Amino acid sequence: MSKAIPDTMERIVLAARPQGSPKPSDFRLETIPMPQPGEGEYLARTIWLSLDPYMRGRMDESKSYAAAVEIGAPMEGGCVAEVIASNNPNFAVGDFINDGMGWQSHAVRDGKMARKLDPGLAPISTAVGVLGMPGITAYVGLNTHGRPKSGETLVVGAATGAVGSLVGQLAKAQGLRVVGVAGGAEKCAYAVNELGFDACLDHYAAADASALRRQMADACPKGVDIYFENVAGKTLEAVIPLINVHGRIPVCGMISWYNAGALGAGAAEGPNIMPKIWRTILVNRISVTGFIITDHYDQFPTFVKEVGALIKEGKIVYKESISDGLASAPAAFIKLLEGGNFGKQLVAVSEDPTR
Amino acid sequence: MSKAIPDTMERIVLAARPQGSPKPSDFRLETIPMPQPGEGEYLARTIWLSLDPYMRGRMDESKSYAAAVEIGAPMEGGCVAEVIASNNPNFAVGDFINDGMGWQSHAVRDGKMARKLDPGLAPISTAVGVLGMPGITAYVGLNTHGRPKSGETLVVGAATGAVGSLVGQLAKAQGLRVVGVAGGAEKCAYAVNELGFDACLDHYAAADASALRRQMADACPKGVDIYFENVAGKTLEAVIPLINVHGRIPVCGMISWYNAGALGAGAAEGPNIMPKIWRTILVNRISVTGFIITDHYDQFPTFVKEVGALIKEGKIVYKESISDGLASAPAAFIKLLEGGNFGKQLVAVSEDPTR
Repeated sequence: MSKAIPDTMERIVLAARPQGSPKPSDFRLETIPMPQPGEGEYLARTIWLSLDPYMRGRMDESKSYAAAVEIGAPMEGGCVAEVIASNNPNFAVGDFINDGMGWQSHAVRDGKMARKLDPGLAPISTAVGVLGMPGITAYVGLNTHGRPKSGETLVVGAATGAVGSLVGQLAKAQGLRVVGVAGGAEKCAYAVNELGFDACLDHYAAADASALRRQMADACPKGVDIYFENVAGKTLEAVIPLINVHGRIPVCGMISWYNAGALGAGAAEGPNIMPKIWRTILVNRISVTGFIITDHYDQFPTFVKEVGALIKEGKIVYKESISDGLASAPAAFIKLLEGGNFGKQLVAVSEDPTR
Repeated sequence: MSKAIPDTMERIVLAARPQGSPKPSDFRLETIPMPQPGEGEYLARTIWLSLDPYMRGRMDESKSYAAAVEIGAPMEGGCVAEVIASNNPNFAVGDFINDGMGWQSHAVRDGKMARKLDPGLAPISTAVGVLGMPGITAYVGLNTHGRPKSGETLVVGAATGAVGSLVGQLAKAQGLRVVGVAGGAEKCAYAVNELGFDACLDHYAAADASALRRQMADACPKGVDIYFENVAGKTLEAVIPLINVHGRIPVCGMISWYNAGALGAGAAEGPNIMPKIWRTILVNRISVTGFIITDHYDQFPTFVKEVGALIKEGKIVYKESISDGLASAPAAFIKLLEGGNFGKQLVAVSEDPTR
């Protein structure tokens, strides 16, 4: 099984902390000597690198739930990888794993955070998508924090993204009316025709939050019981007045604000919408719950079992947006933050022998 | 027991919807013929009228959890009253009751929302204060939505008000560190010396939210686990960055924003603080729960039993701020919204024979 191991590897490091939107020059591609696994370690090659909105937060210095990436250090990220050399008895050469390799072609790891993958169960790329971190984020956010009930109405932004697309499909399977918000007619058509959403609103076509709200009110004749928050901005402003008594807002992300200078000046422009939102939370007795998926990994086995079965039965579909080669990661990530991806954003770092 | 019933009664009606802070001319004192109780009804005289911040919301046309008071209709409000004529077998002349008489010297009622009071248990005025709506608001907000644990830290605004003072005392009794925020040195001294709070910060003495935050950080060396929200504004801005992971924010009110033009222009001035607050909710996995106390009246018996016992034992103290005569209600209410009251605001409408 083992192949010749190259002498060098590539990685993308954080070159500078972005001001607002990241630029290509905030990243740097480096070639470094191939590391050797020590006692209890293995060397793996990255097959799929996952690009996710949360990575934007790691580029800022401001306090978050996880430490910032240091300047000069490789960008962090979840990956699907293949073990190519091992001093760890739990991981053999040829094993496919899900591990936090970072934006790197190879990495030496101790396996403590790794999970072995069975290529027979599902395509291994799903381990960083619909059956990985974005998938369980959708699952826990909807079920634990959204507490869906059949007949209710759910609104989710970034409707064709890795999280939003699964939130909506899981909610549909539980008998909810599902209304997505996405950027562009093509994504909206996909959400309705392929994902089975009841409606999907194109936020590019809505001049402002009020216009989006009017469309949303039409699409949600019984109001909104769950707003799954992953975008904030205009979508949040639009949905707030439509949320029903005892509504729930699981807060998973706020991608439209990520580039606003660590949520400083940029996001703070415009009127202060806080009083109106706070008042609606009070008057309509809304539960707003921030959650970080790493707090809920105890649900991973149940999640994989349930959602894996739905995928096998064809009841859940997913879409991948693939960028070619590690060097393409910065541009793909910048595009992701602008909503330019269509489906789960992956970087094909090296050959996937299971495809 | 029965006394001569006057030919006329007084009431205060809503004369105009306030723009921003209510003015005396937004209210009108009227004298009208005394109504007669019909079948199943009684006539009662108001002894104590309760003034509460929520009443500001009823003066606005905007959608809230309860209908707005109509122009020309009497202001709504909870009262302690005495039945003076009755065609209702459940209520006898001389009974003391807690009922929604409104800002009126007398009212004919059907008793469906009334509760009989036992003057031997506690002063009857407490039925609209520490043992009434404000009291159960504090009790449910803290226990059901705040989920306090011994050793945690709680921050509450309007610390000497009807709700805040009980929130803090109940939290102290459960082993929490309690930090209040109040307006003025006198109130702060009372919160610490009489209510037993660990600290109380004078928001008048803090130039802005940042200054208040620095004081709060000193007073909360282990951060803030529960922020009981009843004031919003500067206090909310100050506390948000101090809230710990898995913190809770029961949202009970936001008095500092009530006068801002139905939460329009006035409250929306200044920077948009929403993105920073939303981000903190996500990053620190905070639960924000709006609640309206009428959803929780099933807890009333437990509440009265528990808190009544604590009052009897002298473990809970309360303070009343009494305004004399129904005609004084508008001025007292305007002052309440400005923080000019000190303790539970009551209007002494007629003689309390139990005092």
